[in-house]
Amino acid sequence: MSPTTISRFEPPKLEELPADIAERIAAVQEKSGFVPNVFLALARRPDEFRAFFAYHDALMEKPGGLSKAEREMIVVATSGLNHCGYCVVAHGAILRIRAKNPLIADQVAINYRKADVTPRERAMLDFAMKVAERSQDVDDADYAALKAHGFTDDEAWDIAAIAAFFAMSNRLANAFSIRPNEEFYTMGRERRF
Amino acid sequence: MSPTTISRFEPPKLEELPADIAERIAAVQEKSGFVPNVFLALARRPDEFRAFFAYHDALMEKPGGLSKAEREMIVVATSGLNHCGYCVVAHGAILRIRAKNPLIADQVAINYRKADVTPRERAMLDFAMKVAERSQDVDDADYAALKAHGFTDDEAWDIAAIAAFFAMSNRLANAFSIRPNEEFYTMGRERRF
Amino acid sequence: MSPTTISRFEPPKLEELPADIAERIAAVQEKSGFVPNVFLALARRPDEFRAFFAYHDALMEKPGGLSKAEREMIVVATSGLNHCGYCVVAHGAILRIRAKNPLIADQVAINYRKADVTPRERAMLDFAMKVAERSQDVDDADYAALKAHGFTDDEAWDIAAIAAFFAMSNRLANAFSIRPNEEFYTMGRERRF
Amino acid sequence: MSPTTISRFEPPKLEELPADIAERIAAVQEKSGFVPNVFLALARRPDEFRAFFAYHDALMEKPGGLSKAEREMIVVATSGLNHCGYCVVAHGAILRIRAKNPLIADQVAINYRKADVTPRERAMLDFAMKVAERSQDVDDADYAALKAHGFTDDEAWDIAAIAAFFAMSNRLANAFSIRPNEEFYTMGRERRF
Amino acid sequence: MSPTTISRFEPPKLEELPADIAERIAAVQEKSGFVPNVFLALARRPDEFRAFFAYHDALMEKPGGLSKAEREMIVVATSGLNHCGYCVVAHGAILRIRAKNPLIADQVAINYRKADVTPRERAMLDFAMKVAERSQDVDDADYAALKAHGFTDDEAWDIAAIAAFFAMSNRLANAFSIRPNEEFYTMGRERRF
Amino acid sequence: MSPTTISRFEPPKLEELPADIAERIAAVQEKSGFVPNVFLALARRPDEFRAFFAYHDALMEKPGGLSKAEREMIVVATSGLNHCGYCVVAHGAILRIRAKNPLIADQVAINYRKADVTPRERAMLDFAMKVAERSQDVDDADYAALKAHGFTDDEAWDIAAIAAFFAMSNRLANAFSIRPNEEFYTMGRERRF
Repeated sequence: MSPTTISRFEPPKLEELPADIAERIAAVQEKSGFVPNVFLALARRPDEFRAFFAYHDALMEKPGGLSKAEREMIVVATSGLNHCGYCVVAHGAILRIRAKNPLIADQVAINYRKADVTPRERAMLDFAMKVAERSQDVDDADYAALKAHGFTDDEAWDIAAIAAFFAMSNRLANAFSIRPNEEFYTMGRERRF
Repeated sequence: MSPTTISRFEPPKLEELPADIAERIAAVQEKSGFVPNVFLALARRPDEFRAFFAYHDALMEKPGGLSKAEREMIVVATSGLNHCGYCVVAHGAILRIRAKNPLIADQVAINYRKADVTPRERAMLDFAMKVAERSQDVDDADYAALKAHGFTDDEAWDIAAIAAFFAMSNRLANAFSIRPNEEFYTMGRERRF
Repeated sequence: MSPTTISRFEPPKLEELPADIAERIAAVQEKSGFVPNVFLALARRPDEFRAFFAYHDALMEKPGGLSKAEREMIVVATSGLNHCGYCVVAHGAILRIRAKNPLIADQVAINYRKADVTPRERAMLDFAMKVAERSQDVDDADYAALKAHGFTDDEAWDIAAIAAFFAMSNRLANAFSIRPNEEFYTMGRERRF
Repeated sequence: MSPTTISRFEPPKLEELPADIAERIAAVQEKSGFVPNVFLALARRPDEFRAFFAYHDALMEKPGGLSKAEREMIVVATSGLNHCGYCVVAHGAILRIRAKNPLIADQVAINYRKADVTPRERAMLDFAMKVAERSQDVDDADYAALKAHGFTDDEAWDIAAIAAFFAMSNRLANAFSIRPNEEFYTMGRERRF
Repeated sequence: MSPTTISRFEPPKLEELPADIAERIAAVQEKSGFVPNVFLALARRPDEFRAFFAYHDALMEKPGGLSKAEREMIVVATSGLNHCGYCVVAHGAILRIRAKNPLIADQVAINYRKADVTPRERAMLDFAMKVAERSQDVDDADYAALKAHGFTDDEAWDIAAIAAFFAMSNRLANAFSIRPNEEFYTMGRERRF
Repeated sequence: MSPTTISRFEPPKLEELPADIAERIAAVQEKSGFVPNVFLALARRPDEFRAFFAYHDALMEKPGGLSKAEREMIVVATSGLNHCGYCVVAHGAILRIRAKNPLIADQVAINYRKADVTPRERAMLDFAMKVAERSQDVDDADYAALKAHGFTDDEAWDIAAIAAFFAMSNRLANAFSIRPNEEFYTMGRERRF
């Protein structure tokens, strides 16, 4: 794959996109200064694009519950487990920014068990990794371990749902060979933001 | 879990559901004669419910491309691999009906390599299983193998996307212990429909 | 493999079988209304046939100890783990009948941890799966867990021996591509027998 | 387990054994100079003992087909894969004697791919290991590879059946902690017999 | 582990180190501006320290053969496979600098199969990963694949030896919980050096 | 590989070796009566040879701490796990001699969990196997388990370091196909030394 290709599947021309999708893409560009490649790659399928980002936002942007840094930590750990380069690089950047911690993303992506995480975060990631790897074995003891660290039932749902959503996302990005934008590699690496 | 519980998380009361979700549930009940438990379990989270079924329908119901029996075959093989009881039982029923074949679902769920499938279906399932299990290794040779069996680029996308969507679905159903409705077990098992 | 082939190896002609084997086959046909394909496939080797079924009967038919439904539950869980289509379909039918439960076989074959089983049955299946998958690690703690659920030493032997016998059986049926008879798929699926 | 215990399950008293089993044990003692512990351990269950050894002899002692050294080579490779100490030590001794090769057993038990085997033996062991590890994937190509090395259909059956029988045997010996007799460790290790 | 701890084992006081080790550490500090934690952690054992770095230098610094960027690429891929945070972060920095490529380390650490590597580099990494993961299966075909990409016998040795050395290194850093220095995270990330 | 070849890579001529390496080889020949093939195979690279054996001696020969038999037990268990024929055969011989136990090496190589080891040795091997297989998961609980059996911090280091060194060694011997000398197979097998 040439370094200028963003995915195995040719992305659509921006001027041919449905208006709502073009708007969403313009908004993210406005906010970030560039368009993350997953938006262009998935725009090839407008209905799937809409559902994907509606689901993403419902899990990652809704108010209350897990902090946004916690959610991104789940994403990075799941994506490391699934060897998804796009997701580790892109969400690693977001995690660094949301956690205000320039080191945490690389630590969690390679081995969250040795990362600078609190016992509560460790319990959260243990549960997420079990959903990602062996969801067939999830049982009462796993939920009890979360509760022991103060997670509510609804937060347990969120952890499982984020790990499951990125089980999908990681597979899409890998199967389609979506390339991480260069901008992500250095975002949030400076000591203070 | 008691046999009358449909999921680890208490489902919402039907009368308290947002109108669009209540309608969707009424429609599926009208069509099937019962409400599959995944609808009730996910209704606890209206935004996630909407995105989940919008995504599902975009992949499973859109016109053209893979036949509906082929799509369900991917679902059943993926769900067998991921040991998801809900998904194997529910989509096994749909596969039997769509393929007009009372034997195929049990064969594919346990070992698709020994199932009564055509070489084209075998290639489709080999690709789907690679996305489900080792998406980090998917490469040109996998797409070439699909093309050799007559699959278009867009059908390759569909196979990958269905396997990825059920990577999510299987993990949700397992993590939430969603229980298959009894109706599914026997649907489509008679020799002729 | 054509749907009418029962195994990769041509089965012997019935009229050429040794008398004792012909009798055994006639007896099972009399009882079941059809001849399960494993009988025909293994009859190619009379001495192995005799030893196989003698062993099978010693474990599965002997009086006392585990109930017959419990024994079949071990068979179905082991066969699901080993992805043996013949064994899951054939013994799934027998399990439904012996347990008088039309749902249990599909549940146990896909994921016994989410099946409607008692804590005692769960302990029995955990032990059987350890023998099936990692017998090198079986140790005192595994036997103690059985004892805590009321299993005697002789019942522990039975669980291990059934899991081990089907480790063999599953490999034979898979290596020889023995095809499940259609009759098995629907046996015992009605609510009451 | 004390070094003097031969198995987790107390073996029966020799004088209480059924006559046919006592005779079989006397015969092996006469021939070998000692009683291999598997005979004593399994004698606790006379019917299973009879079926086990009838099956063993049908596969390992029948005239024609694979040489006896080839059969033992399959046993040792399978037992190494399954980490069965009893089977590696006991059948390693028999392999050394039958192959008249004091080095072959240790090589095959640890890594048959680096052992001093012919290309034909390598193909035989590759097939046996696939039956032992992933029988669900055995297909036409595996049988074709055997045929290319001159194996007949009946010899292919034998290879699969021996690997399957020891899948059982290894699990029994491991689950019951059957201890290898000391005599086996040194048998056949001298350069010439 | 507190963020200020560099390893599970207390490192020695610098002033108590043998002269040759103190000199080596002073030299690396002079060159890099800081002391990588692996030097302090291993200095607890002077003889092991000397052998470890002598081996390291023999493989990583010797003239001729693989380029230094190629060698670091093997290190990062091996360390990603083995989930070694210290090694990925530290050698990721060195790889970025030696390859003059700010993106390559993150790509290779997560999934070298999707990284911007040449076919020659891909063959090199495939071989290294086989040595790291399944060295028991390495055979003639693996060496032939290297030769087809122009690697000499001595370069094949180097690839295997580097992958093997970091099989050790990764396990030491993980078992001792050696913490990556903060300096490494950002080194070599700017577009041009 | 012909039985007379000692490695995939041609070893150097003895008369062309650097003096220190020739001396080391002469010394081992003097002591053992033959030259273990790993010395000849690695002599192709004098600097790597020196570092390898300096490291080996620092771990395996230093006074105090673990007994020499304990160290060899770790080597044999690690080498069995990694399917390294050279290392199991060569160090199996040394273990038999150092432990004055002709049975222990074969037991530990195939399945240390069923071997005649003390609870202390079992804890030591459990830790070593975790370093060998899943060093990324090593944590406080693993070190606490060692301490509970009386191991000091420095002995914990030694166990980890030996398992890590042989992670390297096993990969080198497998990748280079180093052949075990025949002498090793029978050394230390007699009941009393």
